[in-house]
Amino acid sequence: MRALLISIPLTILFASAPLADPLPSWTDTATKDRIIAFVEGITDPDSPDYVTPAARIATFDNDGTLWAEQPVYFQLLFAIDRLKEMAAADPGVLTSDVLRAAVEGDMETVAASGTEGLLEIVSTTHSGLTVDEFQAVVRSWLDTARHSGTGLAYDQMVYQPMLELLTYLRDEGFRTYIASGGGLHFIRVFSESAYNIPPEQVIGSIGNGSYSAGDGPPRVMKDPGLFFIDDKAGKPVAIEARIGRRPVIAVGNSDGDFQMLEWTTAGDGARLGILLHHTDSEREYAYGRESHIGQLARGLDEAASRGWLVIDMARDWERIWPSRE
Amino acid sequence: MRALLISIPLTILFASAPLADPLPSWTDTATKDRIIAFVEGITDPDSPDYVTPAARIATFDNDGTLWAEQPVYFQLLFAIDRLKEMAAADPGVLTSDVLRAAVEGDMETVAASGTEGLLEIVSTTHSGLTVDEFQAVVRSWLDTARHSGTGLAYDQMVYQPMLELLTYLRDEGFRTYIASGGGLHFIRVFSESAYNIPPEQVIGSIGNGSYSAGDGPPRVMKDPGLFFIDDKAGKPVAIEARIGRRPVIAVGNSDGDFQMLEWTTAGDGARLGILLHHTDSEREYAYGRESHIGQLARGLDEAASRGWLVIDMARDWERIWPSRE
Repeated sequence: MRALLISIPLTILFASAPLADPLPSWTDTATKDRIIAFVEGITDPDSPDYVTPAARIATFDNDGTLWAEQPVYFQLLFAIDRLKEMAAADPGVLTSDVLRAAVEGDMETVAASGTEGLLEIVSTTHSGLTVDEFQAVVRSWLDTARHSGTGLAYDQMVYQPMLELLTYLRDEGFRTYIASGGGLHFIRVFSESAYNIPPEQVIGSIGNGSYSAGDGPPRVMKDPGLFFIDDKAGKPVAIEARIGRRPVIAVGNSDGDFQMLEWTTAGDGARLGILLHHTDSEREYAYGRESHIGQLARGLDEAASRGWLVIDMARDWERIWPSRE
Repeated sequence: MRALLISIPLTILFASAPLADPLPSWTDTATKDRIIAFVEGITDPDSPDYVTPAARIATFDNDGTLWAEQPVYFQLLFAIDRLKEMAAADPGVLTSDVLRAAVEGDMETVAASGTEGLLEIVSTTHSGLTVDEFQAVVRSWLDTARHSGTGLAYDQMVYQPMLELLTYLRDEGFRTYIASGGGLHFIRVFSESAYNIPPEQVIGSIGNGSYSAGDGPPRVMKDPGLFFIDDKAGKPVAIEARIGRRPVIAVGNSDGDFQMLEWTTAGDGARLGILLHHTDSEREYAYGRESHIGQLARGLDEAASRGWLVIDMARDWERIWPSRE
């Protein structure tokens, strides 16, 4: 026995010693193993999958991927709260049925108004002020508003396993970007504090903007109307325009992320598409195929044939929120 | 004498020893001194002007600021060369007088067509192909085309003093961005090799784009029509949208950069606006107030009152091109 032990070179003993787990809130399943194996291949100069640090780009959807999105997109809740404040100061802002329904809490009418109604609510509440002023309003809302289900501040309803994945990727030389259908200026208010993602690495939908000077301090204004929707086929277009590189890893949770994953994983060399499937009605929410928000149908249908990794929240995550358990 | 020397502490002797000059191609004038003094204030933690590394953003115009722009914007020369190739393969692409004038070298008619005519030439030659295909065409053009005045490749007609300024700022913790009226996809072809500026730090004008898949590999297309012009009041809007921070330093050469400098220098704390005045008809070009390209009139009128630094090329630069002298 002693002779056998001595015959094992020390280097092998050290090489097989377990390193610190980079994803401690992930259950030890094949999902976690595949993520780590992928990152190790990308970063090993001797691997055929090696990618230079400059090309290590990872893009993450936000709503339902980095933070929760149920029962309603948090940005819409912000917009309605802001609309109520605006209407209290000047009821004249309520110029349509959908705006009146929103302040009365008649979410059925709001939902029935479709995308057009939602955009009217967003445009009304996200324009007519400077970017700085808007972001101060969002900051103040985040500091006081609480989620009806958990009682948590909205920017505390981020997924601990995703925070670990972001940190792990950055530690391995990746730059982590958000590519969200949500608002660029809205997300930037908390992206740095919640995710350690700086403003220049946030890609999102954006309204019209303009520059004003002469009649006051030089400033960038948020104007009515939508300039770009960063969703579905808009995501690859915006990522290309903003970064100029195809991501190596793309992470989403809904069919709004389908094209981002499709474009990413069609690139040369090793690429990884990841979908988060919300399967945990006890600790978070269970939804997907039939959901009115975050619908995931085509993604589930095609993930296997496309080689995309599907995270099963209930199975793969030991912990959901940073502040709990 | 000996006693005097001994009384000087060694630390002072070392502190006053000259460091390597970060801007060796700049003449020792007040212009160079002011740039270095500004950067030293920004980076000294004990200075009231100190700026944290994350906020150290510098934006540079491209045409006429980082590379030359006479006798005509280089991107327009590229567009005309490409239009000639397209017309040789299919004369049917020449659907208007301005397009026909462009391939016949009738620059008077092209100039008389104004912005609309120029945009028609650019749109025709910059659409109907993928971003990757377009950039391969630009790369091939840069490899073969030569400037009529200098015989240099266009991406060699970059200003050595500006390359030194970019490197100096990066060495001092700045991130250097291009904010150009020129095309985003065009500039990215040479921004990394010419300036060491990666694609994600290029801001420019951009045409419409779309995503295609299903009928071929997933790809981002360049479509006809203009999506955003990154010039004049568009520059602060685009910089805000792309970076989410106000620059600390903005550098331009024409009234198209006025709003970028105005917005930048209106920010809190120490900020620096720099204008390059082309005054050197012997080594480069002399133009400004009356120029059809790169007009600089309001900038010269207001620079002193706004505290902007004006570089006099003939006086302040010992050397122009990297490959000469």
